Amino acid sequence: MNTEPSFLSKNRIKELARLKQKDNRLQEKLVVVDGFRTLEQIKFYGINPLEQYLLEGMQPIPIWDNIPVYYISEWDMHKICDSEHPSGFAALFPIPQAQKVNFNCAFYLDRISDPGNLGSIFRIAAAFSIGTLLLSPDCVEVSSPKVIRSSSGSVYKVPFQQANISELKALKGRIILADAHKGQALSKFNFQPEEKLIIVLGSEAHGISSEVSSLTNEALHIEMSSAIESLNVSISAAIIAYHLFIQRNTNNLTK
Amino acid sequence: MNTEPSFLSKNRIKELARLKQKDNRLQEKLVVVDGFRTLEQIKFYGINPLEQYLLEGMQPIPIWDNIPVYYISEWDMHKICDSEHPSGFAALFPIPQAQKVNFNCAFYLDRISDPGNLGSIFRIAAAFSIGTLLLSPDCVEVSSPKVIRSSSGSVYKVPFQQANISELKALKGRIILADAHKGQALSKFNFQPEEKLIIVLGSEAHGISSEVSSLTNEALHIEMSSAIESLNVSISAAIIAYHLFIQRNTNNLTK
Repeated sequence: MNTEPSFLSKNRIKELARLKQKDNRLQEKLVVVDGFRTLEQIKFYGINPLEQYLLEGMQPIPIWDNIPVYYISEWDMHKICDSEHPSGFAALFPIPQAQKVNFNCAFYLDRISDPGNLGSIFRIAAAFSIGTLLLSPDCVEVSSPKVIRSSSGSVYKVPFQQANISELKALKGRIILADAHKGQALSKFNFQPEEKLIIVLGSEAHGISSEVSSLTNEALHIEMSSAIESLNVSISAAIIAYHLFIQRNTNNLTK
Repeated sequence: MNTEPSFLSKNRIKELARLKQKDNRLQEKLVVVDGFRTLEQIKFYGINPLEQYLLEGMQPIPIWDNIPVYYISEWDMHKICDSEHPSGFAALFPIPQAQKVNFNCAFYLDRISDPGNLGSIFRIAAAFSIGTLLLSPDCVEVSSPKVIRSSSGSVYKVPFQQANISELKALKGRIILADAHKGQALSKFNFQPEEKLIIVLGSEAHGISSEVSSLTNEALHIEMSSAIESLNVSISAAIIAYHLFIQRNTNNLTK
């Protein structure tokens, strides 16, 4: 076990700082993730980083036992971390990889451009066993440090894949639009355990695109007070995911 | 109707910029809110601002017909608005006022310090008819522009009040802790329509304080996959609020 702290060269700091740019991340296939809680959750998922970086002086205990540790200055921590107020903990990971999987239930995310929302939906998918996330073109990049932080590391747990309109069609699922005002009420929505559900969520700014809408006649809405026009997309995702999770468990129990 | 655009003096811009600081806001009891969608929702709630500010050059259409309009430069918009990328729309409002109301169902927010989370919970409360929000000492300030934006203006719709531990006790409600791991499962949770429920939500960083926990033996948890340790507090709030909303409607229908 090598847990002796070492220090990083100026050149190495520069290399790591370059990973803040999307193009460099995608080319190197590496990303620096910071935040104690996020790293703890990634560890909980059984994922190991390549290196871990701790703030010198504070001498915090490394999160992973068997991964090389480097102590760095607060100044350098700011250079390599994307967040405004980096914690004393950061680590270098391979970027999360898309993968095609079989699924019973997926969310199709139509042009979700806010990193906080995308990350939050990954975390919700992990919590409520959504089988996969399908990302339309123009969704924000999954390996963005903001997405990874908001996901609390769940980008490393929940399978995801890019899917344009023809790839979405080719999946041959039961496509249902999550719409604020149309379709059946969520609390009454039911499905067969063996069905392949694809719930479509659009962004607040853009809604669901007409190409995707044209693929289905089915919609569902979350019942709510008439005082409000719509919910944030990650809030809608959470309420729908929980409902499906409870329904699926009930279906399994009564089978 | 006076909708002729005017311009603001340098001194007036300075006065408005001072409102970015909490102390000045609380002293003047005024806040500048920016963002087209937030302002539209505030208008939908029937709330009027004192003045509205539009970006000169873009000549956007004022949101309110009968409220004085001032055109200001992009530079000045940045000075008076708190958000990083102000939209072309801002307006001056009295800060939201605490008020004591009778309620059937309240959330007690225990040391919620993240403005995005507090705002999001206000929006959820508006969507699912939570009667009031009770704020512990050390919650983030309701009149923070970040809270108002995240709430999509719902700080002007949902009644709220400060409540320390003895004020919470004095409300004599059925206090239930929202706990990630303890208590009864949310999907099985039921209540009588006439009951006065107070659901306690703690922050991720601090959890629920021991003083509040000691007031009750009741807890409820949101069922979820074991893959994940906890949910973001606004996500938990949404799932609980929706469940209560559906239960209450069902109870009312079957009465």
